[in-house]
Amino acid sequence: MTVSAFDHPFLRGLLGDQEVGACFSVEADLRAMLDFEAALAQAQGEAGMIPVQSAKAIVGACASLEPDIEALDQSTAIDGVVVPDLVRQLRAAVGERASEHVHMGSTSQDAIDTGAAMRLAKVTDILTGRLEGIIEVLNTLQAQWGERPLMGRTRMKRALPITVADRLRNWREPLERQLARAPAVREGVAVLHLGGPVGTLGQLGENGPAVAQAMAKRLELNSPSGPRHTQRDHLAEFASWLSLVSGSLGKLGQDIALMAIDEVGEIELSGGGGSSAMAHKQNPVAAEVLVTLARFNAAQLAAMHTGLVHENERSGAAWTLEWLTLPPMCVATAAGLRHGRELLGAVVLMGTSEL
Amino acid sequence: MTVSAFDHPFLRGLLGDQEVGACFSVEADLRAMLDFEAALAQAQGEAGMIPVQSAKAIVGACASLEPDIEALDQSTAIDGVVVPDLVRQLRAAVGERASEHVHMGSTSQDAIDTGAAMRLAKVTDILTGRLEGIIEVLNTLQAQWGERPLMGRTRMKRALPITVADRLRNWREPLERQLARAPAVREGVAVLHLGGPVGTLGQLGENGPAVAQAMAKRLELNSPSGPRHTQRDHLAEFASWLSLVSGSLGKLGQDIALMAIDEVGEIELSGGGGSSAMAHKQNPVAAEVLVTLARFNAAQLAAMHTGLVHENERSGAAWTLEWLTLPPMCVATAAGLRHGRELLGAVVLMGTSEL
Amino acid sequence: MTVSAFDHPFLRGLLGDQEVGACFSVEADLRAMLDFEAALAQAQGEAGMIPVQSAKAIVGACASLEPDIEALDQSTAIDGVVVPDLVRQLRAAVGERASEHVHMGSTSQDAIDTGAAMRLAKVTDILTGRLEGIIEVLNTLQAQWGERPLMGRTRMKRALPITVADRLRNWREPLERQLARAPAVREGVAVLHLGGPVGTLGQLGENGPAVAQAMAKRLELNSPSGPRHTQRDHLAEFASWLSLVSGSLGKLGQDIALMAIDEVGEIELSGGGGSSAMAHKQNPVAAEVLVTLARFNAAQLAAMHTGLVHENERSGAAWTLEWLTLPPMCVATAAGLRHGRELLGAVVLMGTSEL
Amino acid sequence: MTVSAFDHPFLRGLLGDQEVGACFSVEADLRAMLDFEAALAQAQGEAGMIPVQSAKAIVGACASLEPDIEALDQSTAIDGVVVPDLVRQLRAAVGERASEHVHMGSTSQDAIDTGAAMRLAKVTDILTGRLEGIIEVLNTLQAQWGERPLMGRTRMKRALPITVADRLRNWREPLERQLARAPAVREGVAVLHLGGPVGTLGQLGENGPAVAQAMAKRLELNSPSGPRHTQRDHLAEFASWLSLVSGSLGKLGQDIALMAIDEVGEIELSGGGGSSAMAHKQNPVAAEVLVTLARFNAAQLAAMHTGLVHENERSGAAWTLEWLTLPPMCVATAAGLRHGRELLGAVVLMGTSEL
Repeated sequence: MTVSAFDHPFLRGLLGDQEVGACFSVEADLRAMLDFEAALAQAQGEAGMIPVQSAKAIVGACASLEPDIEALDQSTAIDGVVVPDLVRQLRAAVGERASEHVHMGSTSQDAIDTGAAMRLAKVTDILTGRLEGIIEVLNTLQAQWGERPLMGRTRMKRALPITVADRLRNWREPLERQLARAPAVREGVAVLHLGGPVGTLGQLGENGPAVAQAMAKRLELNSPSGPRHTQRDHLAEFASWLSLVSGSLGKLGQDIALMAIDEVGEIELSGGGGSSAMAHKQNPVAAEVLVTLARFNAAQLAAMHTGLVHENERSGAAWTLEWLTLPPMCVATAAGLRHGRELLGAVVLMGTSEL
Repeated sequence: MTVSAFDHPFLRGLLGDQEVGACFSVEADLRAMLDFEAALAQAQGEAGMIPVQSAKAIVGACASLEPDIEALDQSTAIDGVVVPDLVRQLRAAVGERASEHVHMGSTSQDAIDTGAAMRLAKVTDILTGRLEGIIEVLNTLQAQWGERPLMGRTRMKRALPITVADRLRNWREPLERQLARAPAVREGVAVLHLGGPVGTLGQLGENGPAVAQAMAKRLELNSPSGPRHTQRDHLAEFASWLSLVSGSLGKLGQDIALMAIDEVGEIELSGGGGSSAMAHKQNPVAAEVLVTLARFNAAQLAAMHTGLVHENERSGAAWTLEWLTLPPMCVATAAGLRHGRELLGAVVLMGTSEL
Repeated sequence: MTVSAFDHPFLRGLLGDQEVGACFSVEADLRAMLDFEAALAQAQGEAGMIPVQSAKAIVGACASLEPDIEALDQSTAIDGVVVPDLVRQLRAAVGERASEHVHMGSTSQDAIDTGAAMRLAKVTDILTGRLEGIIEVLNTLQAQWGERPLMGRTRMKRALPITVADRLRNWREPLERQLARAPAVREGVAVLHLGGPVGTLGQLGENGPAVAQAMAKRLELNSPSGPRHTQRDHLAEFASWLSLVSGSLGKLGQDIALMAIDEVGEIELSGGGGSSAMAHKQNPVAAEVLVTLARFNAAQLAAMHTGLVHENERSGAAWTLEWLTLPPMCVATAAGLRHGRELLGAVVLMGTSEL
Repeated sequence: MTVSAFDHPFLRGLLGDQEVGACFSVEADLRAMLDFEAALAQAQGEAGMIPVQSAKAIVGACASLEPDIEALDQSTAIDGVVVPDLVRQLRAAVGERASEHVHMGSTSQDAIDTGAAMRLAKVTDILTGRLEGIIEVLNTLQAQWGERPLMGRTRMKRALPITVADRLRNWREPLERQLARAPAVREGVAVLHLGGPVGTLGQLGENGPAVAQAMAKRLELNSPSGPRHTQRDHLAEFASWLSLVSGSLGKLGQDIALMAIDEVGEIELSGGGGSSAMAHKQNPVAAEVLVTLARFNAAQLAAMHTGLVHENERSGAAWTLEWLTLPPMCVATAAGLRHGRELLGAVVLMGTSEL
């Protein structure tokens, strides 16, 4: 059953992304949450809050547990979160003694948000690498075609001559700025969430800060002053960054689609899309898809920002909305960067010979 | 790999929907497109446009073909649409003679849009049934608790006493109106799209209208005056209808979440969500999810309406945006109706004994 | 101070609309609410609920009152609604005796929603007339240029020849459908809202239905079974209809902008936009604005549908969101219809002489 | 005529903002564009590109010109931009000799975008000051009520005790982060746009960079490597920042509305909203408005990000969308900060005496 085109068996090649998509696989999801539970137990063992044997048993079980996903699905449908049943399964796996030390002082949102943080950090790394890659291709195009003339067009009409380099500058600079922002954006999302039921780390007592610090180190995350159960600005900002990337690519795609109009003929691409009815056509499929993905992410951004309004100490309604919105945005951005690079790599002619 | 929560192995029980989700499975998708190709060949055979043997061969192959999905995925990534490769596979299956009569005079968008129409018709039927179901439960609640007093609240403050029936009226009437609109909405989406490459049915010549009529009859669809390759108002309106349903449910969910506040205590529910940290809590998970799904659909609606701007005879950019947006909206609406009914069915107390 | 481009002294000629804008003037707003109060008093007088003299005095004061707008602004900033202070001013105007009979049994939302209903009905009439007008122009174009050839274009590339009539069909049919839906949409918004503080008409006792009926007749509105303080589906559906109109015009505008590309040269327009720097250019300004307005309305639609989630008997948060969103949508739609008609009226050549 | 609630004579006290609204008055708009023209002439005079007398005449005329706004409105309706007619009026004012040196080498978008940049810089300063103000009030609340107990609530249900300070942390930290981001955001929008018709500064020849630098200095703006006619990421990012501020305030408002529920009674506010029907009620109007404004800005953000797709060297369609969207967002954010501060200042009791 594949409702989402990003996961769809014959659409994912077009609209999905294998590398970033893998960050949102069920395996990666469970793995990250189990890493969280392992790190928690380890840190609590080191702090003397739970027996070292329990910590060891939990770390071991986290590494080897193969969760019963059917059971997780059924219980999530009732609990609204996967963690209660995952913890139940983990407790069964660690044996009776260590059982009570599993997930101690923590809450569902700690595990889920931290698991997401680990994966969003990785997504940011992948996207950063792709931004570098596409900028590199733009520089190559600049070297190859930059000096060729092009008709500058404003409000859809011919205006005055420019060069290909002028057009490329407007494609490249916004992407360079998003690349420059990547580290700050990454720092915002790559945070440990550890707060316990109401975000106060209450059950960890005075060990709280030390446990958080140890966990953050182990999981390679930042440790903010407290959990961000209801502070979602970092996620909304991350989503904005994704949309800035895909929006910048959308401009590039729209331009290429316009340059590829037969009568305009300012660009030629190798490869391209076949038609079921007209063998002679080469559709600028990737250019169109960039526009699609830009519009998609722009709309999702409204959902992510609507979701800033978490009530009280933890919200079910606003939190769940993030789950529906953010992973598709990540994949759409990744797909855009992939298509963008391939599209630019397929340019075999750009500009005009004269004006 | 599961990017979408609607398809997610352990979130789909909460956020997905088996019945409506199945309408968007890859099998249902391919089945519908092959039904389109079969109906086309059949109608063209009957009209004497292609040999009856070819029609027969094509109808047979459509019934038995098990498409190579990997190949479809790879070619869709290049062509932007699945149909060219699907037609190629179908041509290979029908044998050399009938090969040229496959997909004759049609275009990718005909097959994809008609295939979608068949499935959206079914989705509408399912949602219609669920609307009836939830209205029935509301009527039961009315009979059971309608006369009990409830504090009327405006702008979040206690105002004046009402009855449970007063509150229920505001939950029920919007759903009744969406139920009443269902047939018109269904008629809008359940249409045959048959236009050929540029929407003029050119290659079918004077047989065009007859072929269209025969196909529509066979596929149980309406046959409009022409294809709607770029006329997407029916889809945007369908999406609006979905959002009206989920938005009406969101109001109901929000109200229940507020009634379930411990100090307010105007509703009690059986079942409900467990917590990983606090065994005593019963979270109004389904009520919260109704709010989530309402907000999700509202945001998607912007994408669907942005996508009304199809360029020229057929657009890649705007069309693809529909694929990303409409199936998740359908599933979100279905999940909302399912949760809504279960939630209302779990009411064990409503209103107050006195004011 | 003009924050909105729709009201802006030098942008409203481009983006605003005098006729529909006037429906949202402060005068029209106050007039409609005072008409509501007059109709309420009149009906209550006829029903014997208040003295006939009071009814007379109130009706008279409603006709002659010139509200102190500065005072309204200041009190609205505190109360969140204008009605408390408007009622205070009206009470002062009717004299001591009738004072207590002003606004009796009603609530702020009754006056504001009914006032809006009266104006939205008028807006619908204006838009309906414009839809008829633009369809007429499309028919004229059909008669004049319909048979000329045009290159059919799909996915931004030349495909196969069509005629201008083929293109026009895709512009016209969606507008014809919106015209056909106008009466149903109008019926949905042109409703009396009369419910009193918690929507139960409680203070009107058994006279409630009769008063509502009399008021609805006088105000030329429908009288539903009860108020729709929290039932906002009719407004969200109205907003969808607006967006369907502007989205359909956006497709038309996008097409014209593409046809007007110099090298494509499939359309020529008289008039058009001057440039501050290039005297020779004629920008397809109106065509671009149609795309702008389509995208604007699509985004607002998300807000209107998010606003379906009204809490309890009356919501401040969701209700206020409608005020920010719906009037601009109406004006954007009206501006689109005006531009669309002018743009189509400016066509001096369409299609090509040969292909 | 007032379509927008932000400008509305009796809604602007509630939803508008005098200080930020003034940045978008027609006077401020014209003043900023005339400052641009003056700075251009001055810099061109200094660079020897135009006679010093011409520069002087232009600077003088820019200072004294009182534009004919009616004429601007009429021509903008045709040209799509105000600048052609404004330049015409300015040329008439400077006299025949200097006439040809007005707006030399520049284009409409240079004047409009730079004018907007000057005003957005000022808006950022105002919002920054208000962020500081509201954080100060939050710190005061912390000092006053921080140690009082409060029931921690998750998923709308009572969970475990926290303190008021715990709740305040989640309100304050996101606002502190937006305050910390303000300088970077300001740097992004406070840029000179000078590119001429196709963004290449072509008509300024080798003087281009020097003129740009001189202008930027005079107008107190940054001077990027080139104009950003189609590079709109800084505006989309600015819009995201606005929405992060209003979204963070929305969470605060939602919490206060929930705390103010009569049965919950965790907060008491002085002032507050009156009701037209129930004298005893004190509605948490400002808290609700914060939620409204958060949802409003979230939806507008989709439009701003959709508008990233500018075509070619300058787009009419995408550019105009910014005009419709960004000023209302600025005012909504400002109104939110104003309401937020007043609301928090009105807290007379917070938390509970015991749990």
